[in-house]
Amino acid sequence: MTAPKIRVHVENARSKAALHQITPAQWDAACARHPELARRLEASLGWDGDVLEGALRNAEIVIGVPALRERLSERAPRLKWLHATSAGVDRVLPLDWLPKGVAFTNNRGAHGAKAEQFMRMAYSLLHMRMPEIVANQHARRWQQLFSPGIAGKTALVIGLGDLGMGAVRAAKQLGLKVIGVSRGGKKVRHADAVHAIPALDGLLPEADFVVLAVPLTPGTRHLLDRSRLDLMKPTAGVINIARAAVADYTALAEKLERGELAGAVLDVVEPEPLPQDSPLWGTRNLIITPHISCDDGDHYMDITLDLWFANLARYVKGQTLRNRVDPRRGY
Amino acid sequence: MTAPKIRVHVENARSKAALHQITPAQWDAACARHPELARRLEASLGWDGDVLEGALRNAEIVIGVPALRERLSERAPRLKWLHATSAGVDRVLPLDWLPKGVAFTNNRGAHGAKAEQFMRMAYSLLHMRMPEIVANQHARRWQQLFSPGIAGKTALVIGLGDLGMGAVRAAKQLGLKVIGVSRGGKKVRHADAVHAIPALDGLLPEADFVVLAVPLTPGTRHLLDRSRLDLMKPTAGVINIARAAVADYTALAEKLERGELAGAVLDVVEPEPLPQDSPLWGTRNLIITPHISCDDGDHYMDITLDLWFANLARYVKGQTLRNRVDPRRGY
Repeated sequence: MTAPKIRVHVENARSKAALHQITPAQWDAACARHPELARRLEASLGWDGDVLEGALRNAEIVIGVPALRERLSERAPRLKWLHATSAGVDRVLPLDWLPKGVAFTNNRGAHGAKAEQFMRMAYSLLHMRMPEIVANQHARRWQQLFSPGIAGKTALVIGLGDLGMGAVRAAKQLGLKVIGVSRGGKKVRHADAVHAIPALDGLLPEADFVVLAVPLTPGTRHLLDRSRLDLMKPTAGVINIARAAVADYTALAEKLERGELAGAVLDVVEPEPLPQDSPLWGTRNLIITPHISCDDGDHYMDITLDLWFANLARYVKGQTLRNRVDPRRGY
Repeated sequence: MTAPKIRVHVENARSKAALHQITPAQWDAACARHPELARRLEASLGWDGDVLEGALRNAEIVIGVPALRERLSERAPRLKWLHATSAGVDRVLPLDWLPKGVAFTNNRGAHGAKAEQFMRMAYSLLHMRMPEIVANQHARRWQQLFSPGIAGKTALVIGLGDLGMGAVRAAKQLGLKVIGVSRGGKKVRHADAVHAIPALDGLLPEADFVVLAVPLTPGTRHLLDRSRLDLMKPTAGVINIARAAVADYTALAEKLERGELAGAVLDVVEPEPLPQDSPLWGTRNLIITPHISCDDGDHYMDITLDLWFANLARYVKGQTLRNRVDPRRGY
């Protein structure tokens, strides 16, 4: 007698970048890496709802949040677990559509290694005055903008989840002083100090680099607002690898244009794709990277599926799932 | 009875960047860091020859190669040691003007720490496709160019002096495989393998990053020529922190324009300043940094003078000086 299969549906969206879609080959490869667990699954893969409704009728687990989320408890009566293949779930907040009793997990852990690599570069871009240097190149202007050693400068990393910890590790490798800010203010590895959010205003004047790595929730919207940007040193820079709306970009762009901040590297903008007529494209001392900082271009979904299988191991044993999104906190 | 003072002249040129000039304050600060030795010196500082001829008549040591080098043995009859405040001495080759018996030293050792920092950024710039990303920003084009992890890629570092070793350390920190190339091919720390120059053609096809860190001499001119560029993978990139003429930039620019190489970061061009009408400014997938990769913007001359004082300690004891330029090799 064999145990009944666990029905899993993987829902993809063609509107997403290729690396954010799970192909049958990637699914099969992940199953081959986790054969014991994979044997217990019966899986379907779909794109943009093509097989969704039929799959939902029996699915116990869905990977990928469906675009259409209305009446999910009726459409998916057996659903127990929904997994988002992104870390941030701000785009599906509030979670009023989530049926009671369904566990909702995010993809925390899939981004830290790449974020660490990006941040090593991003700190150096600002420190070595690359926003000015690339602008000078475009203007065909030779100007020797020198910089000293980076060691001893201070990084203020706001948010100490998977991304933030990548930013902390990168800062430490470069010899920076690292101050972390998180909800609870609990000490973390590699940070010289960690404070809770209420301490933020007192910390901003010390920072050479302010790194935004918090989830976007109603509570973090415009966390780095105009008054907080005004607390920063004019020689300091901002790096955002979280979500655009956690900072006031209008205020930031104004300060950059006036030289009241030295530079910024923004990996996230609003909306994405950024429209051609957005003034951000041409803002002085601003480097825009197109939301590429934290996703491994070759292995994002392999990493994602490995994380999911690790959680599946907990699921089949009846253990509490990791990465559960708290509907009240929104992350 | 006191020993006679050692007469030292420091010769500056206003045409150089401010950080390449030794100010009286920097000289005094260096003397204060090395009081025992400084007590034995009698020093003069000059700019563009203003006090040069009088100083040369008695000088035993000159720091900074004078612009006018004719008949130096007549003008400086007591000269024993001339110190260049740059690492490369290509601009004063051949050394036929150097009086016999005068020791000529370069500034090797003043650049490695900064070079290491720059190289960490430069590898990442190419790996993360930043040449395309900054071009897209300028064109107001949103295109998500993702990249995988950088670890496991291969850096081929040509030249293993002070700069090259900075490039080797940076590569190792990023998890790259590091192949070094030097005249002797002697194993160095952090490099997975080291080969002598004749092996170069066989190594180029393996490289994801080719780093130029050799001194410019008649023997290294166009070391990375068209035929060698043709040996590189189309996905690979070039980073030059040495001198422009060690590569064939015409061939390099053609290959970049045709997409036969993925990118380049050139910190050195010819001439410097690069004229406004140089086609290099607008070459596809090329980032030009204005010869700022290896000089500490705040402390270059402090580092230089500390190195010089360390050599002075050897000088007063009659020991062989470090960093002596070999007139036959030209570095």
